[in-house]
Amino acid sequence: MLYLTRLEHFNAAHKLYNPNWSREQNDQMFGKCANDNWHGHNYDLYVTIKGNPDPDTGFLFDVKKLSILIKDYVIEKLDHRNLNLDVDFMQGKMCSTENLAIGIWQQLEPHLPAGVQLHCIKLYETPRIYVEYFG
Amino acid sequence: MLYLTRLEHFNAAHKLYNPNWSREQNDQMFGKCANDNWHGHNYDLYVTIKGNPDPDTGFLFDVKKLSILIKDYVIEKLDHRNLNLDVDFMQGKMCSTENLAIGIWQQLEPHLPAGVQLHCIKLYETPRIYVEYFG
Amino acid sequence: MLYLTRLEHFNAAHKLYNPNWSREQNDQMFGKCANDNWHGHNYDLYVTIKGNPDPDTGFLFDVKKLSILIKDYVIEKLDHRNLNLDVDFMQGKMCSTENLAIGIWQQLEPHLPAGVQLHCIKLYETPRIYVEYFG
Amino acid sequence: MLYLTRLEHFNAAHKLYNPNWSREQNDQMFGKCANDNWHGHNYDLYVTIKGNPDPDTGFLFDVKKLSILIKDYVIEKLDHRNLNLDVDFMQGKMCSTENLAIGIWQQLEPHLPAGVQLHCIKLYETPRIYVEYFG
Amino acid sequence: MLYLTRLEHFNAAHKLYNPNWSREQNDQMFGKCANDNWHGHNYDLYVTIKGNPDPDTGFLFDVKKLSILIKDYVIEKLDHRNLNLDVDFMQGKMCSTENLAIGIWQQLEPHLPAGVQLHCIKLYETPRIYVEYFG
Amino acid sequence: MLYLTRLEHFNAAHKLYNPNWSREQNDQMFGKCANDNWHGHNYDLYVTIKGNPDPDTGFLFDVKKLSILIKDYVIEKLDHRNLNLDVDFMQGKMCSTENLAIGIWQQLEPHLPAGVQLHCIKLYETPRIYVEYFG
Repeated sequence: MLYLTRLEHFNAAHKLYNPNWSREQNDQMFGKCANDNWHGHNYDLYVTIKGNPDPDTGFLFDVKKLSILIKDYVIEKLDHRNLNLDVDFMQGKMCSTENLAIGIWQQLEPHLPAGVQLHCIKLYETPRIYVEYFG
Repeated sequence: MLYLTRLEHFNAAHKLYNPNWSREQNDQMFGKCANDNWHGHNYDLYVTIKGNPDPDTGFLFDVKKLSILIKDYVIEKLDHRNLNLDVDFMQGKMCSTENLAIGIWQQLEPHLPAGVQLHCIKLYETPRIYVEYFG
Repeated sequence: MLYLTRLEHFNAAHKLYNPNWSREQNDQMFGKCANDNWHGHNYDLYVTIKGNPDPDTGFLFDVKKLSILIKDYVIEKLDHRNLNLDVDFMQGKMCSTENLAIGIWQQLEPHLPAGVQLHCIKLYETPRIYVEYFG
Repeated sequence: MLYLTRLEHFNAAHKLYNPNWSREQNDQMFGKCANDNWHGHNYDLYVTIKGNPDPDTGFLFDVKKLSILIKDYVIEKLDHRNLNLDVDFMQGKMCSTENLAIGIWQQLEPHLPAGVQLHCIKLYETPRIYVEYFG
Repeated sequence: MLYLTRLEHFNAAHKLYNPNWSREQNDQMFGKCANDNWHGHNYDLYVTIKGNPDPDTGFLFDVKKLSILIKDYVIEKLDHRNLNLDVDFMQGKMCSTENLAIGIWQQLEPHLPAGVQLHCIKLYETPRIYVEYFG
Repeated sequence: MLYLTRLEHFNAAHKLYNPNWSREQNDQMFGKCANDNWHGHNYDLYVTIKGNPDPDTGFLFDVKKLSILIKDYVIEKLDHRNLNLDVDFMQGKMCSTENLAIGIWQQLEPHLPAGVQLHCIKLYETPRIYVEYFG
């Protein structure tokens, strides 16, 4: 069993705000992250798949095809977007990095071919904070 | 003459949109960066000062004091903000990384003590794009 | 189950020296790391916790609170210190990166709240050498 | 149980070409990677071992000795080489990063001392693509 | 005056070999870099331009257009190529990083628009070795 | 004119303490950096030289020879040392990063061959603080 990882990037705006809470509750919990006018990040997204290399190609999966899948089903929906307003699969959820990683897994997992399994979504919110989700 | 550099970070939302242009002109020039609902970045800010080391301390300038100056006059105004809406010194300007670097220079330069000169503002918009301004 | 990681830094001095060994044995085993006058490192510390996101916040655990816990119970005791002389939880132990990672785990683990488990202490001694401890 | 990782580098040329396929099949599958005149990479190699620290030294294994083992059995055979032409343990295999990681594991694993187990070979082909093999 | 930098990558094979020298002279001067069967690198290319921001856009130059220029006139000719055999502008020259940086400058400089000047080509051969050329 | 840069590393202990000052003055100015029991850093050292490439080799200067010069005249004296106690060229000086960069310049500059000039010593004390000296 081998693991293959591809790094992609996207930029997005978001805020952390629970609509069932008062302004004060939100400010106390989320601080500057609750800024009404949004803030944003450069996200680094590491997608790891696992499987066995094909003897004819030496590839677990063509990394260019993996990159296209990530771009079509994830980056296209997130890059230069507002996570709270523009992204269908984040509607009705808190736009934390945790929930975003789970959402990305759900977007990508159905599109991988037979013999290739999604192993991990690792998402950097800043160079010092990241989240990992293994399904 | 010695040069001392300190790295700080901030996150912000912005969009690129010229209000004197039509929607079409903006979309053609700025593409996804003109998204009405904003997008955002993790900015890396390198501040370089120059001068001569003090014989008693060996310091050009106390780097902790430099960090406090940057935080008080720059980071506090930009971090977790919307560059177009929340930042006084960007009002009426296009919020490009170029103009932001010039604005940061103008915020910081008056607050440096005698004997210490501001040399460069280097601002990363993404890990692959940065701007430098030398005044 | 989700994993959340926070990076912190500290600087410290140490030496590698077994007091039950002769000078020659120490020099043979530890080489320059046994220098009587100490040497030092910038350590990078990655703390990974695991658990489930809270539906109200989207957070596994507030990363600012995690950062405060790490600073209070670990960084405060290690930063700008001498690991052999100044650090209570390293007394009587060899100050290897291996033992330091175990010590950091023991410092931090009792202070995590219910529902959040410590998963990994990853400690870089240099950009090319690191240790991981999973408890 | 502790994990210790050491990073080493090497540069090499290779191409991706299946000799049982036609030129067209190779170009379609491997694109520019099938260039007859070779291309190349700076590879980053992370070797992770696991075991328990020795109470006398605090070491899982002397990282300088680990570095020498990696240099003698792996780097010496790969650095500034042509993976397809010069490397005995890659003969008759597709020179993908996947197969190279497996080959490096097989080179290194027999030479680790008792009490130290090889845990992972992590190999970066570019800063955005890497492979992991756990045996 | 502002400076704007864009990072691009390419992979290539090369060798260092002076055809006017004997085998022994080449081996003595270039060591493993003279390997007949080639070796290779992941090159990081930083292109810096200078000029004044346009008041209507805030841009010194549209960084997406800069990226396209670099790809069309430089990356397309170098990526997954053999620098000695495949690259027209390196014919008859030693394929050192120094000469490659000069060659890249000469490829790119004529294609920049009025008001934008090429300032620097910075080329990393490995993460620890780089060359800068200012024309 | 071309510029060639080589990165080397060293680890060292130091403290910041002016012997002409009282304990209180030192603590007030240098804070934790004045810890009597020392602290330490991983220093990153970038050495930049300038000159013209040799037509026969394509080299400004053989980077392996540059690396040997840096190791012989700088790294050997600093790595795994105490900057205050063990390093001849820092005696009687405050061991700030500023003074260390000047000292490294003075160690290295006399040993460069004709036709090669030292251009810059860039020294990282931490990943967020660095100093540059141009002679």
